[in-house]
Parts: sequence; structure tokens; C-alpha cells
Amino acid sequence: MDPSYRVRNSSALPSPALLVYPEKIRNNTALALAIAGNPERLWPHIKTHKTQEITAIQREAGIRKFKCATMAEAEMLARCGVKVVLLAYQPVGPNIPRLVELCQRYAEVSFLVIADDRRIAAELSEQFSRAGGRIEVLLDIDPGMGRTGVAPDEKAVELYLELGKLKGIVAGGLHCFDGHNNQEDPEARMSAARECLAALDLLQDRVQRRGGKVPRRILGGTSTFPCYAKLGNVELSPGTCFLQDWHNLKRYQDLPFQPAALLFARVVSKPASGRVTVDAGCKAIASDPPAERGIVYSDEGFKPLFQSEEHWVFEVQDSQRFKVGDELYILPTHICPTFALHQSVRVVDASGDWVDSWPVLARDREL
Amino acid sequence: MDPSYRVRNSSALPSPALLVYPEKIRNNTALALAIAGNPERLWPHIKTHKTQEITAIQREAGIRKFKCATMAEAEMLARCGVKVVLLAYQPVGPNIPRLVELCQRYAEVSFLVIADDRRIAAELSEQFSRAGGRIEVLLDIDPGMGRTGVAPDEKAVELYLELGKLKGIVAGGLHCFDGHNNQEDPEARMSAARECLAALDLLQDRVQRRGGKVPRRILGGTSTFPCYAKLGNVELSPGTCFLQDWHNLKRYQDLPFQPAALLFARVVSKPASGRVTVDAGCKAIASDPPAERGIVYSDEGFKPLFQSEEHWVFEVQDSQRFKVGDELYILPTHICPTFALHQSVRVVDASGDWVDSWPVLARDREL
Repeated sequence: MDPSYRVRNSSALPSPALLVYPEKIRNNTALALAIAGNPERLWPHIKTHKTQEITAIQREAGIRKFKCATMAEAEMLARCGVKVVLLAYQPVGPNIPRLVELCQRYAEVSFLVIADDRRIAAELSEQFSRAGGRIEVLLDIDPGMGRTGVAPDEKAVELYLELGKLKGIVAGGLHCFDGHNNQEDPEARMSAARECLAALDLLQDRVQRRGGKVPRRILGGTSTFPCYAKLGNVELSPGTCFLQDWHNLKRYQDLPFQPAALLFARVVSKPASGRVTVDAGCKAIASDPPAERGIVYSDEGFKPLFQSEEHWVFEVQDSQRFKVGDELYILPTHICPTFALHQSVRVVDASGDWVDSWPVLARDREL
Repeated sequence: MDPSYRVRNSSALPSPALLVYPEKIRNNTALALAIAGNPERLWPHIKTHKTQEITAIQREAGIRKFKCATMAEAEMLARCGVKVVLLAYQPVGPNIPRLVELCQRYAEVSFLVIADDRRIAAELSEQFSRAGGRIEVLLDIDPGMGRTGVAPDEKAVELYLELGKLKGIVAGGLHCFDGHNNQEDPEARMSAARECLAALDLLQDRVQRRGGKVPRRILGGTSTFPCYAKLGNVELSPGTCFLQDWHNLKRYQDLPFQPAALLFARVVSKPASGRVTVDAGCKAIASDPPAERGIVYSDEGFKPLFQSEEHWVFEVQDSQRFKVGDELYILPTHICPTFALHQSVRVVDASGDWVDSWPVLARDREL
């Protein structure tokens, strides 16, 4: 492990604790901006960190527009001064009036939302127009991932044109997340992205030939935003790369973002020779995706055996080099749900001192 | 699904939300007490719910002693009036002075802690005696699970006798968690528990022959506490059974606890025929243990395909019966880490109304 990750005043730091390194977040942000070419194209997805202070780092770099997934994240962004907020989640049930209320409360903020369902569009229309407001709605397109959205076919053209006719709604363009385009080979990924964009181009053509307007297209996550950045007139919404994690680090060797968040842990037991148990359980590090949940970044030779809620048991060849109380640094496989497990993150400055704590505010679903 | 789980005023309830049913928690508590035979034998593990109000339900049933895994859980118990608190986790680093401070702040509370390491025992001794206090320490025994603790052999005898000689420490007995004794067959489980207790009996004999005292033995989780309740002079520490979850419900058919917590969710998209996407991602339901994360309890025929942070995608044969916005009730496979994902739970009364919210206080690691 690069020694710049080590905390100098660690003895006062209770474990488990999630560490963040603002200098490294700044570097990752600069790299994301260089890839995007222009801050106006970039919508960082803040589900990754849910944190006002990291949003501030991204804004200091010139980023104005942010994407989020929950009502609480949208509210957090508005609360910390962001003026353009995309809620990339179709609201249902009481989240529709909550969204109307949020837009009224933060009238200076431009909120955008996605939809893929005729009935939800009609409800948005009815509730926003009744409240005397309006909201920009992006049609959510399914690029073959099969999670949300409509296929970019004739029905999508009809639905998009319908959006444009509804009161209280502005048809704001297309949203498309292609999480299945996670090919390790950059060429294969580029080719998949090209195909996805071609389908959107075609859809846009058909909409425009019938008089519709497509003001913007917001596309891709960390794996494909560099592809779309090269391919053309689209806006980009990476998330994970600002903090970087083990999954992306090992998978996308063409994207040199550096880890900017680590889990700090200690050995809490050595139940047998060759075995070390650490105070990092599944309540401190995400267990999604399945399989390997992170790697011990500070030390070699740790093979995970099993994890409980507050324990992680490893096989370690020469376990005698560790004693109970020893410190470890773990790189999480998936940093986004890991952040949501912590009430706050500990801030480590460039000299290696733990100097502050930042609340992971939007892990709460109601602020 | 038993209709008593359905929320009557659900239209005002934002999703995803974790529901609790106090009447059902009371029933489970009564059953746990009936199995234990005597409240003095029962130490409910509150890592399951991390909640003051559920602790209060358990106390109303006559339970006085509680077990927990984190400093925050210990503090929460002291704060809500519990007088006997077992921290079943060996403290390391700054958690040792934090524990000293906690014991001083709540001088009316008897705290117990576990240890399995000579150096940690010495640190506890030094820091507690320096502060003019003392703490009851239970030796943590590894019954073959291989997570924490020492094997019940001659070294354990020596270590236990040493505990008894250290200032600031009282050797309080033995703690043993046998999470690997999770056999579906009640007879096989009973047999494993009998073996585990026999090893502890032997250890206790050897300690006593050398003049040591073993005031108590605290043993077993939900799967084995009914075994130990029958086997003899031990105290019991089940956790999950008070809320019950899908893992235990399907696995331990001899333990008729009823689900008392469900995840409330809504359909947020229908990206294709035969496919339904729900607003229950891995930030709302635990993904540990690996594999199936829960079942749709209110409806039949849901086959999980994949889950993201805020989405869960299912294959459903006749998906046309669902529309976007429809409500579902999900029984989590593992309720304990699921609770820790929520800032509060929604309380559903016996008439089926959502009437209150209870904070999941000790999901925060610092109160």
C-alpha cells in the first residue's frame, strides 16, 4: 500500500472506521473532468458518497450538475447549494407529492426526474400542474440491462411525444444507464457503448421527425462514461470513480482513478494458528456484489474465510506477525453501499492526520 | 401472507420502509421466555434490532440482562435503563478507554465484556484499575466455529486463572457462541450442543479444581438456545428470534417464531414482459449471507434476477397483474443487518395502521 494512506494519529481512531482522502478525491475529480472535457457534460452520481462535503469538492472543481437516486439525496444536494439536480429514479406512491413539495421548497433549484411509465408520467403531470409548477422529465431508456426503462423502439417514441403534451411536465430528453456494459476490454466496452448510442440516435431521429425535441441525453456510469465522452453529444453520469473501489480498480485498467476511501480495521482475535479475525463485518463493508467484499490493502496474504456482522475471518499464512489490536486498511470491492453503512467518514489530510469527520447525510432516507 | 401484516394506511408510507409489528415481537418474546424457563437465564442479543423501543418490549416481559456487540449498542442499552449489559466483543485500541469511560458514566450499570487475548486482558486490567473501577470479564471460548475465542483446552484454563489474578478485572465465567451449530435437524443440533456443553463442563471442572470460580456461562444463539435451555445450568443469548427472518423460518422448523419485521416496497418499473423491478436494493435489505436476500412475502412467483443499490429485479410469470406503484411486502433473509440499513422502522399496530417510527439508534457507531 502507498504509505500516503496510513493514518499517523490512528491510535485515537476507533475501528471500524471509513477513511476518506480529500486530496485523492480532488485528483479523481480532475481526471473525470479531463475525460469529460467540460464540466457542463458531467453529472456526478452522488449515491456513491451521499455526503455534502464531497459534493463541495466536486463543485469546487467547476461541476454544477448532479445526479442522485433517492429523495433524500436530492434533498441533500438542494440543501448544500446545488442548482441542477437529476433524480434518476422514477417516483411512486407518496414520493410523487414529496417531489412536488421538494421542488416548491427549493424553487431556485432545477430538478429533473426520470420516468418510463405512462401512469407515473400522468401522475407527475397532474400533481405538478395542480401545484402550479412543472418538472423536466427524461424518458428512461433500457439499453438491454433489463432493470428499468423502455426499449428504444416505436413505443418509446410515442411515450416521449406524450410527455411533451402533458401539463406540468417538460420533456427533457433521454436517460440511459448501461450497467451491463462492464467489459474489461476497453475496445469491447467502446463497441457496446457505440451500439447503445446508435440506438439512442435513431430514437432521437424518430422523435424529431415527428416534431419532438430531445434537449439532452444523460448516459453511462463509471465504466462507459469515457466511451460516451469520445462518442459525441451526450452528458455523462459516473459515480464510483470519484472514490474508486477494488471492483473498478481491478476491472478497468484503462481508468486510472485511485482509491480515495479505505476501511480502517483492527485484529480482534486470533482464534487459531493461520487465522486472523478483524473488526470489519458486513455492517461495515458492503456485501454486494456477491463474492469477494474487499481486500486487505495494507498487508499481503489475507484470504477471506467468512464474515459475520461485526467480524471478518481470514486465513493468513504467517499469522504470528499479527497481534490482537493491530491495524489494517481494507479496500472495499464496492464503495457506494459501503459508505451507506457509516454515519460519518473520517477525513485524512495530505500529511496523514485524521482531522475531521463528515456525516454521510443521505444514508438517512429522510433528512 | 397472513393479512395481519398488511398496512391499512400504506398510501402515505414512502418506500422502501422497514415495518415492525410490536404484537408479534411480544409473542416471540413470550415464546423465547417460555423456552428459557426463566427471564434470569435470557440475554437477548440486541444487535438484531439496535432499538430502544424493542429493548423496552423485551424488558416489559421481565428480561433484565442484554447482550450486544458494539460500543454504541452497549451505550444505547445503558441509556435506556438496562442495568446488566454484556459487550460480547473483545475491545481493542481506543475502544478500551471508551469502555472505561462508559462504565464510569453509567456507574449504576453492571457491564460485562469478553476477552480471549492475554494482552487485551492486561490492558483492560491496567486501564480499569487505573480508573479505580473494575469489570467482569468472560473468557471467550471457541467451540469450533473458528471466529473468535480460545479452544477449551489447558491454555484456556491458564488464561482464565490469570484473569482472576488481574486487578480491575473479575473473572466472570465463560462466553461461547456456536454459530456453526446450525443443523436443520433438531436432533443433530441438540447433539452438537451437547458436545459443546460437555467441553465447557470439562473446562469448568479443571478451572475449579485449581481454585478458580466460573460464576456463569453464556451460550448459544437462536439456533441452539433451546438446546442449552434443556441441557443445564447455562444462560442463553438468542437474537434473531425476537424479530424472526426468512433464514431462520425456513431452516428451524422446530422454532415457531413468527416474522415481526417486513420490508415494504413498491414496483418502480416493468422493463420487459415477465419482469418486475422493485425499490428494494442492497441499501435497504441485507446481502449477507450470500445468495437469496429475502422473499416476496405478499405475492407468489417472484424469482430474483439481480439487485442494485436501489433496485431489485424479479422474474414474474404473469407480470401483467402488477403495475408500477403496486405495493409488496418482503421477508428479509437476515433481519439483523437489514435493520442497520434503516434510520428508523415504521411501527404497525395490531389493527394494521402505521402509527409511529422508532429510530434504529445503535446503527450509528457513535451515539
